[in-house]
Amino acid sequence: MSTNHDTPAAERRRDPAEEARTLVASMTVAHLATVSGDGEPWCSLVSYGPTADGDPVLLLSSQTEEGRHLVQQPRASLAIHDPSAPGDPLDRPRITLAGRAVRPEGEQAEQALHAHASAIPGAMLYAAWEEFSVWVLEVGEVRCVGSLFQTDTISRDVYRASEPDPTAPVAVKMAEHLNKSPDGLLVVARELAGARGAVSAVCTGIDRYGIDLACTGAGQSAAARVLFGEPLRSASELRPATAELISRAQSAGD
Amino acid sequence: MSTNHDTPAAERRRDPAEEARTLVASMTVAHLATVSGDGEPWCSLVSYGPTADGDPVLLLSSQTEEGRHLVQQPRASLAIHDPSAPGDPLDRPRITLAGRAVRPEGEQAEQALHAHASAIPGAMLYAAWEEFSVWVLEVGEVRCVGSLFQTDTISRDVYRASEPDPTAPVAVKMAEHLNKSPDGLLVVARELAGARGAVSAVCTGIDRYGIDLACTGAGQSAAARVLFGEPLRSASELRPATAELISRAQSAGD
Repeated sequence: MSTNHDTPAAERRRDPAEEARTLVASMTVAHLATVSGDGEPWCSLVSYGPTADGDPVLLLSSQTEEGRHLVQQPRASLAIHDPSAPGDPLDRPRITLAGRAVRPEGEQAEQALHAHASAIPGAMLYAAWEEFSVWVLEVGEVRCVGSLFQTDTISRDVYRASEPDPTAPVAVKMAEHLNKSPDGLLVVARELAGARGAVSAVCTGIDRYGIDLACTGAGQSAAARVLFGEPLRSASELRPATAELISRAQSAGD
Repeated sequence: MSTNHDTPAAERRRDPAEEARTLVASMTVAHLATVSGDGEPWCSLVSYGPTADGDPVLLLSSQTEEGRHLVQQPRASLAIHDPSAPGDPLDRPRITLAGRAVRPEGEQAEQALHAHASAIPGAMLYAAWEEFSVWVLEVGEVRCVGSLFQTDTISRDVYRASEPDPTAPVAVKMAEHLNKSPDGLLVVARELAGARGAVSAVCTGIDRYGIDLACTGAGQSAAARVLFGEPLRSASELRPATAELISRAQSAGD
Protein backbone atom coordinates (compact mmCIF):
# COMPACT_ATOMS: atom_id res chain seq x y z
CA MET A 1 0.00 0.00 0.00
CA SER A 2 1.45 3.34 -0.99
CA THR A 3 1.04 6.36 1.21
CA ASN A 4 1.31 9.89 -0.03
CA HIS A 5 4.09 11.57 1.90
CA ASP A 6 3.99 15.06 0.39
CA THR A 7 1.20 16.28 2.66
CA PRO A 8 2.94 17.50 5.81
CA ALA A 9 0.03 19.91 6.36
CA ALA A 10 -2.13 16.86 7.06
CA GLU A 11 -0.16 16.43 10.27
CA ARG A 12 -1.68 19.56 11.71
CA ARG A 13 -3.38 18.65 14.97
CA ARG A 14 -4.07 20.09 18.42
CA ASP A 15 -0.98 21.39 20.21
CA PRO A 16 -0.42 20.67 23.92
CA ALA A 17 -2.17 23.86 25.04
CA GLU A 18 -5.24 23.00 22.96
CA GLU A 19 -5.15 19.45 24.32
CA ALA A 20 -5.03 20.83 27.84
CA ARG A 21 -7.90 23.26 27.26
CA THR A 22 -9.91 20.49 25.59
CA LEU A 23 -9.33 18.06 28.46
CA VAL A 24 -10.29 20.71 31.05
CA ALA A 25 -13.45 21.51 29.08
CA SER A 26 -14.35 17.83 28.61
CA MET A 27 -14.10 16.64 32.21
CA THR A 28 -15.96 17.70 35.36
CA VAL A 29 -14.15 15.66 38.02
CA ALA A 30 -10.57 16.21 39.16
CA HIS A 31 -8.28 15.74 42.10
CA LEU A 32 -7.20 18.75 44.12
CA ALA A 33 -4.03 19.09 46.17
CA THR A 34 -4.06 21.70 48.93
CA VAL A 35 -1.79 22.42 51.88
CA SER A 36 -2.75 23.04 55.49
CA GLY A 37 -1.49 26.04 57.40
CA ASP A 38 1.34 23.92 58.78
CA GLY A 39 2.29 22.39 55.46
CA GLU A 40 0.36 19.10 55.33
CA PRO A 41 -0.72 18.19 51.80
CA TRP A 42 -4.24 16.94 51.22
CA CYS A 43 -5.65 15.25 48.13
CA SER A 44 -9.38 15.14 47.41
CA LEU A 45 -11.88 14.44 44.67
CA VAL A 46 -13.65 17.58 43.48
CA SER A 47 -15.99 18.62 40.70
CA TYR A 48 -15.36 21.73 38.63
CA GLY A 49 -16.48 23.76 35.67
CA PRO A 50 -14.04 25.99 33.76
CA THR A 51 -14.35 29.71 33.09
CA ALA A 52 -14.06 30.97 29.51
CA ASP A 53 -10.32 31.38 30.21
CA GLY A 54 -9.95 27.78 31.35
CA ASP A 55 -9.64 28.50 35.08
CA PRO A 56 -11.44 25.71 36.98
CA VAL A 57 -14.18 26.89 39.34
CA LEU A 58 -14.70 24.79 42.47
CA LEU A 59 -17.51 24.85 44.99
CA LEU A 60 -16.06 23.72 48.31
CA SER A 61 -17.52 23.22 51.75
CA SER A 62 -15.78 24.85 54.69
CA GLN A 63 -16.34 21.52 56.47
CA THR A 64 -13.77 19.80 54.25
CA GLU A 65 -10.00 19.80 54.55
CA GLU A 66 -9.62 21.40 51.12
CA GLY A 67 -12.14 24.14 51.94
CA ARG A 68 -10.31 24.97 55.19
CA HIS A 69 -6.87 24.79 53.59
CA LEU A 70 -7.53 27.30 50.82
CA VAL A 71 -8.62 29.94 53.33
CA GLN A 72 -5.19 29.76 54.92
CA GLN A 73 -3.06 28.83 51.93
CA PRO A 74 -4.40 29.61 48.43
CA ARG A 75 -1.81 27.62 46.51
CA ALA A 76 -3.43 24.62 44.87
CA SER A 77 -2.91 22.03 42.17
CA LEU A 78 -5.53 20.19 40.15
CA ALA A 79 -4.94 16.91 38.27
CA ILE A 80 -7.29 15.94 35.44
CA HIS A 81 -7.48 12.91 33.20
CA ASP A 82 -10.17 10.98 31.37
CA PRO A 83 -10.77 7.76 33.32
CA SER A 84 -12.82 6.34 30.44
CA ALA A 85 -9.89 6.50 28.03
CA PRO A 86 -8.65 3.06 26.97
CA GLY A 87 -5.36 1.53 27.99
CA ASP A 88 -3.08 1.82 30.99
CA PRO A 89 -4.09 4.84 33.10
CA LEU A 90 -0.46 5.97 33.33
CA ASP A 91 -0.25 6.06 29.53
CA ARG A 92 -3.26 8.33 29.24
CA PRO A 93 -2.95 12.03 28.50
CA ARG A 94 -3.33 13.96 31.73
CA ILE A 95 -2.58 17.37 33.09
CA THR A 96 -1.75 19.09 36.32
CA LEU A 97 -2.77 22.72 36.72
CA ALA A 98 -0.90 24.68 39.36
CA GLY A 99 -1.98 28.06 40.62
CA ARG A 100 -3.70 30.07 43.30
CA ALA A 101 -7.30 29.73 44.40
CA VAL A 102 -9.20 32.98 44.88
CA ARG A 103 -12.70 33.69 46.14
CA PRO A 104 -14.31 36.03 43.63
CA GLU A 105 -16.77 38.65 44.82
CA GLY A 106 -19.83 40.38 43.42
CA GLU A 107 -20.42 39.93 39.73
CA GLN A 108 -17.29 37.83 39.33
CA ALA A 109 -18.66 35.42 41.93
CA GLU A 110 -21.90 35.15 39.95
CA GLN A 111 -19.99 34.45 36.75
CA ALA A 112 -17.80 31.88 38.45
CA LEU A 113 -20.78 30.10 39.98
CA HIS A 114 -22.41 30.08 36.56
CA ALA A 115 -19.28 28.47 35.08
CA HIS A 116 -19.31 25.81 37.79
CA ALA A 117 -23.04 25.12 37.54
CA SER A 118 -22.90 24.91 33.73
CA ALA A 119 -20.74 21.82 34.18
CA ILE A 120 -22.33 20.58 37.44
CA PRO A 121 -26.05 21.46 37.29
CA GLY A 122 -26.75 19.79 40.65
CA ALA A 123 -24.45 22.32 42.32
CA MET A 124 -27.25 24.88 42.42
CA LEU A 125 -28.92 22.70 45.05
CA TYR A 126 -26.25 23.53 47.62
CA ALA A 127 -24.46 26.58 46.18
CA ALA A 128 -26.45 28.92 48.41
CA TRP A 129 -25.67 27.05 51.63
CA GLU A 130 -23.50 29.13 53.88
CA GLU A 131 -20.79 26.49 54.18
CA PHE A 132 -20.15 26.44 50.43
CA SER A 133 -17.81 28.88 48.72
CA VAL A 134 -16.89 29.41 45.10
CA TRP A 135 -13.16 29.23 44.40
CA VAL A 136 -11.48 30.02 41.08
CA LEU A 137 -8.17 28.27 40.50
CA GLU A 138 -6.17 30.91 38.64
CA VAL A 139 -3.99 28.68 36.54
CA GLY A 140 -0.33 29.67 36.69
CA GLU A 141 1.29 26.74 34.94
CA VAL A 142 0.13 23.59 33.20
CA ARG A 143 2.02 20.34 33.02
CA CYS A 144 0.91 17.88 30.37
CA VAL A 145 2.00 14.28 30.80
CA GLY A 146 1.26 11.19 28.79
CA SER A 147 1.68 9.31 25.61
CA LEU A 148 -0.01 11.90 23.46
CA PHE A 149 1.45 14.91 25.24
CA GLN A 150 4.84 13.59 26.22
CA THR A 151 5.70 16.12 28.91
CA ASP A 152 5.06 19.75 28.11
CA THR A 153 4.90 22.74 30.37
CA ILE A 154 2.55 25.50 29.28
CA SER A 155 2.60 29.01 30.66
CA ARG A 156 -0.48 30.80 31.92
CA ASP A 157 -0.51 33.10 28.89
CA VAL A 158 -0.33 30.33 26.31
CA TYR A 159 -2.96 28.31 28.18
CA ARG A 160 -5.36 31.24 28.36
CA ALA A 161 -4.79 32.20 24.72
CA SER A 162 -5.73 28.70 23.55
CA GLU A 163 -9.23 27.33 23.35
CA PRO A 164 -10.87 23.93 23.74
CA ASP A 165 -11.54 21.98 20.57
CA PRO A 166 -15.23 22.75 19.94
CA THR A 167 -15.73 19.40 18.20
CA ALA A 168 -14.57 17.35 21.21
CA PRO A 169 -18.04 16.86 22.74
CA VAL A 170 -19.32 15.14 19.60
CA ALA A 171 -16.13 13.65 18.12
CA VAL A 172 -16.46 10.14 19.55
CA LYS A 173 -20.08 9.79 18.42
CA MET A 174 -19.21 11.15 14.98
CA ALA A 175 -16.39 8.62 14.61
CA GLU A 176 -18.79 5.83 15.55
CA HIS A 177 -21.27 7.16 13.00
CA LEU A 178 -18.65 7.29 10.24
CA ASN A 179 -17.49 3.77 11.03
CA LYS A 180 -21.00 2.44 10.51
CA SER A 181 -20.79 3.19 6.77
CA PRO A 182 -17.08 2.72 6.06
CA ASP A 183 -17.33 2.98 2.27
CA GLY A 184 -17.12 6.76 2.49
CA LEU A 185 -14.03 6.55 4.70
CA LEU A 186 -12.39 4.15 2.28
CA VAL A 187 -12.82 6.60 -0.60
CA VAL A 188 -11.40 9.36 1.62
CA ALA A 189 -8.41 7.16 2.49
CA ARG A 190 -7.78 6.29 -1.16
CA GLU A 191 -8.37 9.65 -2.76
CA LEU A 192 -7.38 12.19 -0.10
CA ALA A 193 -4.94 10.38 2.19
CA GLY A 194 -2.93 8.81 -0.60
CA ALA A 195 -3.66 5.29 0.65
CA ARG A 196 -4.51 4.07 -2.86
CA GLY A 197 -4.13 0.40 -2.03
CA ALA A 198 -6.39 0.52 1.02
CA VAL A 199 -9.18 -2.04 1.20
CA SER A 200 -10.54 -0.81 4.51
CA ALA A 201 -10.42 2.39 6.54
CA VAL A 202 -11.55 3.02 10.10
CA CYS A 203 -11.85 6.43 11.74
CA THR A 204 -9.72 6.40 14.90
CA GLY A 205 -10.07 10.04 15.88
CA ILE A 206 -11.57 13.37 14.98
CA ASP A 207 -10.56 16.87 15.96
CA ARG A 208 -11.30 20.34 14.66
CA TYR A 209 -8.48 20.06 12.11
CA GLY A 210 -9.22 16.70 10.55
CA ILE A 211 -9.77 13.00 10.94
CA ASP A 212 -7.41 10.12 11.67
CA LEU A 213 -7.81 6.88 9.77
CA ALA A 214 -6.40 3.41 10.20
CA CYS A 215 -6.07 1.97 6.70
CA THR A 216 -5.35 -1.62 5.75
CA GLY A 217 -4.51 -3.13 2.40
CA ALA A 218 -2.17 -5.71 0.87
CA GLY A 219 -1.55 -7.17 4.31
CA GLN A 220 -0.29 -3.89 5.69
CA SER A 221 -1.80 -1.25 7.90
CA ALA A 222 -1.00 2.45 8.11
CA ALA A 223 -2.24 5.53 9.88
CA ALA A 224 -3.47 8.34 7.67
CA ARG A 225 -4.80 11.78 8.34
CA VAL A 226 -7.00 14.05 6.27
CA LEU A 227 -7.63 17.71 7.04
CA PHE A 228 -10.90 19.55 6.78
CA GLY A 229 -10.97 22.51 4.40
CA GLU A 230 -10.37 24.76 7.36
CA PRO A 231 -10.35 24.28 11.15
CA LEU A 232 -13.88 23.87 12.48
CA ARG A 233 -15.25 26.56 14.78
CA SER A 234 -18.17 24.69 16.29
CA ALA A 235 -19.49 21.19 16.91
CA SER A 236 -22.29 21.78 14.42
CA GLU A 237 -19.74 22.17 11.62
CA LEU A 238 -18.48 18.62 12.07
CA ARG A 239 -21.22 16.78 10.20
CA PRO A 240 -21.17 18.98 7.06
CA ALA A 241 -17.37 19.00 7.11
CA THR A 242 -17.13 15.20 7.09
CA ALA A 243 -19.81 15.02 4.40
CA GLU A 244 -17.77 17.50 2.38
CA LEU A 245 -14.63 15.37 2.78
CA ILE A 246 -16.41 12.28 1.50
CA SER A 247 -17.98 14.22 -1.35
CA ARG A 248 -14.59 15.71 -2.29
CA ALA A 249 -13.04 12.24 -2.24
CA GLN A 250 -15.81 10.83 -4.44
CA SER A 251 -15.36 13.63 -6.97
CA ALA A 252 -11.61 13.03 -7.01
CA GLY A 253 -12.22 9.34 -7.65
CA ASP A 254 -14.59 9.82 -10.57
CA MET B 1 -44.79 -7.89 51.18
CA SER B 2 -43.79 -8.56 54.77
CA THR B 3 -40.21 -8.18 55.86
CA ASN B 4 -38.80 -9.85 58.91
CA HIS B 5 -37.47 -7.16 61.19
CA ASP B 6 -36.16 -9.28 64.04
CA THR B 7 -32.82 -10.02 62.41
CA PRO B 8 -30.55 -7.12 63.34
CA ALA B 9 -27.55 -9.45 62.95
CA ALA B 10 -28.31 -9.49 59.22
CA GLU B 11 -27.23 -5.87 59.14
CA ARG B 12 -23.65 -6.84 59.85
CA ARG B 13 -21.49 -5.49 57.07
CA ARG B 14 -18.05 -4.02 56.49
CA ASP B 15 -17.15 -1.15 58.79
CA PRO B 16 -15.42 1.98 57.44
CA ALA B 17 -11.92 0.61 58.13
CA GLU B 18 -12.71 -2.58 56.22
CA GLU B 19 -14.22 -0.51 53.41
CA ALA B 20 -11.05 1.56 53.29
CA ARG B 21 -8.76 -1.49 53.28
CA THR B 22 -10.94 -3.12 50.61
CA LEU B 23 -10.89 -0.03 48.39
CA VAL B 24 -7.10 0.29 48.73
CA ALA B 25 -6.69 -3.40 47.86
CA SER B 26 -9.09 -3.21 44.90
CA MET B 27 -7.61 -0.22 43.08
CA THR B 28 -4.18 0.39 41.57
CA VAL B 29 -4.47 4.02 40.47
CA ALA B 30 -4.69 7.00 42.80
CA HIS B 31 -3.92 10.69 43.03
CA LEU B 32 -1.02 11.88 45.12
CA ALA B 33 -0.62 15.28 46.75
CA THR B 34 2.91 16.36 47.62
CA VAL B 35 4.48 19.67 48.62
CA SER B 36 7.59 21.33 47.24
CA GLY B 37 10.37 22.56 49.49
CA ASP B 38 8.82 26.02 49.42
CA GLY B 39 5.28 24.85 50.08
CA GLU B 40 3.73 24.48 46.62
CA PRO B 41 1.22 21.61 46.45
CA TRP B 42 1.31 19.26 43.49
CA CYS B 43 -1.29 16.72 42.42
CA SER B 44 -0.46 13.78 40.15
CA LEU B 45 -1.79 10.46 38.94
CA VAL B 46 0.18 7.50 40.33
CA SER B 47 -0.08 3.74 40.44
CA TYR B 48 0.40 1.79 43.65
CA GLY B 49 0.23 -1.60 45.27
CA PRO B 50 -0.44 -1.94 49.01
CA THR B 51 1.71 -3.74 51.57
CA ALA B 52 0.09 -6.37 53.80
CA ASP B 53 -0.57 -3.54 56.28
CA GLY B 54 -2.33 -1.43 53.69
CA ASP B 55 0.45 1.11 53.16
CA PRO B 56 0.51 2.05 49.46
CA VAL B 57 3.84 1.50 47.71
CA LEU B 58 4.68 3.93 44.91
CA LEU B 59 7.41 3.79 42.29
CA LEU B 60 8.30 7.36 41.37
CA SER B 61 10.74 8.91 38.96
CA SER B 62 13.08 11.58 40.25
CA GLN B 63 12.25 13.43 37.02
CA THR B 64 8.72 14.14 38.25
CA GLU B 65 7.50 16.85 40.61
CA GLU B 66 6.19 14.27 43.06
CA GLY B 67 9.46 12.33 43.04
CA ARG B 68 11.45 15.51 43.73
CA HIS B 69 9.05 16.76 46.37
CA LEU B 70 9.15 13.67 48.56
CA VAL B 71 12.93 13.85 48.83
CA GLN B 72 12.57 17.28 50.43
CA GLN B 73 9.22 16.92 52.16
CA PRO B 74 7.96 13.40 52.97
CA ARG B 75 4.43 14.38 53.92
CA ALA B 76 1.96 13.11 51.35
CA SER B 77 -1.70 12.39 50.80
CA LEU B 78 -3.27 9.84 48.49
CA ALA B 79 -6.88 9.93 47.25
CA ILE B 80 -8.51 6.73 45.99
CA HIS B 81 -11.92 5.98 44.51
CA ASP B 82 -13.36 3.53 42.04
CA PRO B 83 -14.02 5.44 38.80
CA SER B 84 -16.07 2.52 37.44
CA ALA B 85 -18.63 2.76 40.27
CA PRO B 86 -22.06 3.90 39.05
CA GLY B 87 -23.61 7.27 39.82
CA ASP B 88 -22.30 10.74 40.52
CA PRO B 89 -18.55 10.61 41.25
CA LEU B 90 -18.99 12.84 44.30
CA ASP B 91 -21.50 10.36 45.75
CA ARG B 92 -19.08 7.47 45.44
CA PRO B 93 -17.22 6.05 48.42
CA ARG B 94 -13.70 7.40 48.44
CA ILE B 95 -10.82 7.81 50.80
CA THR B 96 -7.88 10.05 51.45
CA LEU B 97 -4.84 8.54 53.14
CA ALA B 98 -2.50 11.02 54.84
CA GLY B 99 0.94 10.11 56.04
CA ARG B 100 4.65 10.19 55.41
CA ALA B 101 6.47 8.67 52.48
CA VAL B 102 9.63 6.75 53.31
CA ARG B 103 12.22 5.09 51.09
CA PRO B 104 12.73 1.59 52.47
CA GLU B 105 16.17 -0.03 52.28
CA GLY B 106 17.53 -3.54 51.93
CA GLU B 107 15.06 -6.34 52.46
CA GLN B 108 12.24 -3.89 53.18
CA ALA B 109 12.84 -2.28 49.79
CA GLU B 110 12.58 -5.70 48.16
CA GLN B 111 9.32 -6.42 49.95
CA ALA B 112 7.92 -3.02 49.07
CA LEU B 113 8.83 -3.41 45.41
CA HIS B 114 7.20 -6.82 45.45
CA ALA B 115 4.00 -5.29 46.87
CA HIS B 116 4.02 -2.64 44.13
CA ALA B 117 4.78 -5.07 41.31
CA SER B 118 2.11 -7.53 42.51
CA ALA B 119 -0.44 -4.85 41.65
CA ILE B 120 1.44 -3.30 38.70
CA PRO B 121 3.29 -6.13 36.93
CA GLY B 122 4.64 -3.80 34.25
CA ALA B 123 6.55 -1.90 36.91
CA MET B 124 9.36 -4.45 36.81
CA LEU B 125 10.26 -3.09 33.37
CA TYR B 126 11.49 0.18 34.84
CA ALA B 127 11.90 -0.53 38.55
CA ALA B 128 15.65 -1.03 38.12
CA TRP B 129 16.20 2.26 36.31
CA GLU B 130 18.24 4.61 38.40
CA GLU B 131 15.70 7.42 38.27
CA PHE B 132 12.97 5.28 39.89
CA SER B 133 12.62 4.92 43.65
CA VAL B 134 10.27 2.89 45.79
CA TRP B 135 8.32 4.93 48.32
CA VAL B 136 6.05 3.54 51.03
CA LEU B 137 3.30 5.86 52.19
CA GLU B 138 3.09 5.11 55.90
CA VAL B 139 -0.57 5.81 56.49
CA GLY B 140 -1.17 8.03 59.49
CA GLU B 141 -4.83 8.79 59.14
CA VAL B 142 -7.62 7.80 56.79
CA ARG B 143 -10.59 9.94 55.86
CA CYS B 144 -13.54 8.11 54.33
CA VAL B 145 -16.06 10.22 52.42
CA GLY B 146 -19.13 9.27 50.50
CA SER B 147 -22.61 7.98 50.53
CA LEU B 148 -21.71 4.61 51.91
CA PHE B 149 -19.09 5.88 54.35
CA GLN B 150 -20.56 9.23 55.30
CA THR B 151 -17.43 10.84 56.73
CA ASP B 152 -15.31 8.77 59.04
CA THR B 153 -11.79 9.29 60.25
CA ILE B 154 -9.81 6.15 60.95
CA SER B 155 -6.61 6.06 62.94
CA ARG B 156 -3.46 4.34 61.74
CA ASP B 157 -3.90 1.54 64.29
CA VAL B 158 -7.50 0.76 63.35
CA TYR B 159 -6.63 0.90 59.65
CA ARG B 160 -3.69 -1.47 60.03
CA ALA B 161 -5.64 -3.86 62.25
CA SER B 162 -8.38 -4.22 59.61
CA GLU B 163 -8.12 -6.25 56.47
CA PRO B 164 -9.50 -6.05 52.94
CA ASP B 165 -12.60 -8.09 52.23
CA PRO B 166 -11.14 -11.21 50.57
CA THR B 167 -14.30 -11.72 48.51
CA ALA B 168 -14.13 -8.28 46.87
CA PRO B 169 -12.15 -9.38 43.78
CA VAL B 170 -14.87 -11.89 42.80
CA ALA B 171 -18.00 -10.34 44.32
CA VAL B 172 -19.26 -8.52 41.22
CA LYS B 173 -18.86 -11.58 39.01
CA MET B 174 -20.53 -13.76 41.63
CA ALA B 175 -23.51 -11.40 41.84
CA GLU B 176 -23.83 -11.52 38.04
CA HIS B 177 -23.70 -15.31 38.20
CA LEU B 178 -26.40 -15.48 40.88
CA ASN B 179 -28.63 -13.11 38.95
CA LYS B 180 -28.53 -15.41 35.93
CA SER B 181 -30.55 -18.04 37.83
CA PRO B 182 -32.70 -15.90 40.12
CA ASP B 183 -34.90 -18.76 41.38
CA GLY B 184 -32.34 -19.58 44.06
CA LEU B 185 -32.20 -15.94 45.18
CA LEU B 186 -35.98 -15.78 45.37
CA VAL B 187 -36.08 -18.77 47.73
CA VAL B 188 -33.34 -17.13 49.82
CA ALA B 189 -35.32 -13.88 49.96
CA ARG B 190 -38.53 -15.68 50.95
CA GLU B 191 -37.13 -18.17 53.43
CA LEU B 192 -34.10 -16.47 54.94
CA ALA B 193 -34.69 -12.73 54.50
CA GLY B 194 -38.32 -12.83 55.64
CA ALA B 195 -39.53 -11.40 52.33
CA ARG B 196 -42.30 -14.02 52.09
CA GLY B 197 -44.33 -12.09 49.53
CA ALA B 198 -41.42 -11.55 47.15
CA VAL B 199 -41.95 -12.52 43.54
CA SER B 200 -38.46 -11.54 42.41
CA ALA B 201 -35.08 -11.03 44.04
CA VAL B 202 -31.91 -9.55 42.58
CA CYS B 203 -28.49 -9.65 44.20
CA THR B 204 -27.23 -6.06 44.52
CA GLY B 205 -24.07 -6.73 46.50
CA ILE B 206 -21.90 -9.36 48.11
CA ASP B 207 -19.33 -9.06 50.86
CA ARG B 208 -17.63 -11.48 53.19
CA TYR B 209 -20.54 -11.26 55.65
CA GLY B 210 -23.50 -11.81 53.38
CA ILE B 211 -25.47 -10.78 50.33
CA ASP B 212 -27.76 -7.85 49.64
CA LEU B 213 -30.99 -8.43 47.76
CA ALA B 214 -33.51 -6.14 46.13
CA CYS B 215 -36.88 -7.88 46.50
CA THR B 216 -40.12 -6.97 44.80
CA GLY B 217 -43.63 -8.24 45.40
CA ALA B 218 -47.18 -6.93 45.63
CA GLY B 219 -46.12 -3.74 43.88
CA GLN B 220 -43.53 -2.94 46.52
CA SER B 221 -39.78 -3.26 46.64
CA ALA B 222 -37.53 -3.68 49.64
CA ALA B 223 -33.87 -4.24 50.39
CA ALA B 224 -33.02 -7.41 52.26
CA ARG B 225 -29.81 -8.87 53.55
CA VAL B 226 -28.86 -12.44 54.38
CA LEU B 227 -25.71 -13.42 56.24
CA PHE B 228 -23.46 -16.34 55.47
CA GLY B 229 -23.05 -18.92 58.25
CA GLU B 230 -19.84 -17.16 59.22
CA PRO B 231 -17.68 -14.43 57.67
CA LEU B 232 -15.77 -15.76 54.67
CA ARG B 233 -11.99 -15.90 54.88
CA SER B 234 -11.14 -16.24 51.19
CA ALA B 235 -12.56 -15.65 47.74
CA SER B 236 -12.77 -19.39 47.16
CA GLU B 237 -15.27 -19.73 50.00
CA LEU B 238 -17.79 -17.51 48.22
CA ARG B 239 -19.21 -20.05 45.78
CA PRO B 240 -19.82 -22.82 48.35
CA ALA B 241 -21.19 -20.27 50.83
CA THR B 242 -23.79 -18.98 48.37
CA ALA B 243 -24.68 -22.56 47.39
CA GLU B 244 -25.12 -23.33 51.09
CA LEU B 245 -27.43 -20.31 51.51
CA ILE B 246 -29.64 -21.44 48.65
CA SER B 247 -29.66 -25.01 49.90
CA ARG B 248 -30.53 -23.83 53.42
CA ALA B 249 -33.38 -21.73 52.02
CA GLN B 250 -34.71 -24.64 49.98
CA SER B 251 -34.67 -26.91 53.05
CA ALA B 252 -36.50 -24.26 55.06
CA GLY B 253 -39.12 -23.99 52.32
CA ASP B 254 -39.79 -27.72 52.09
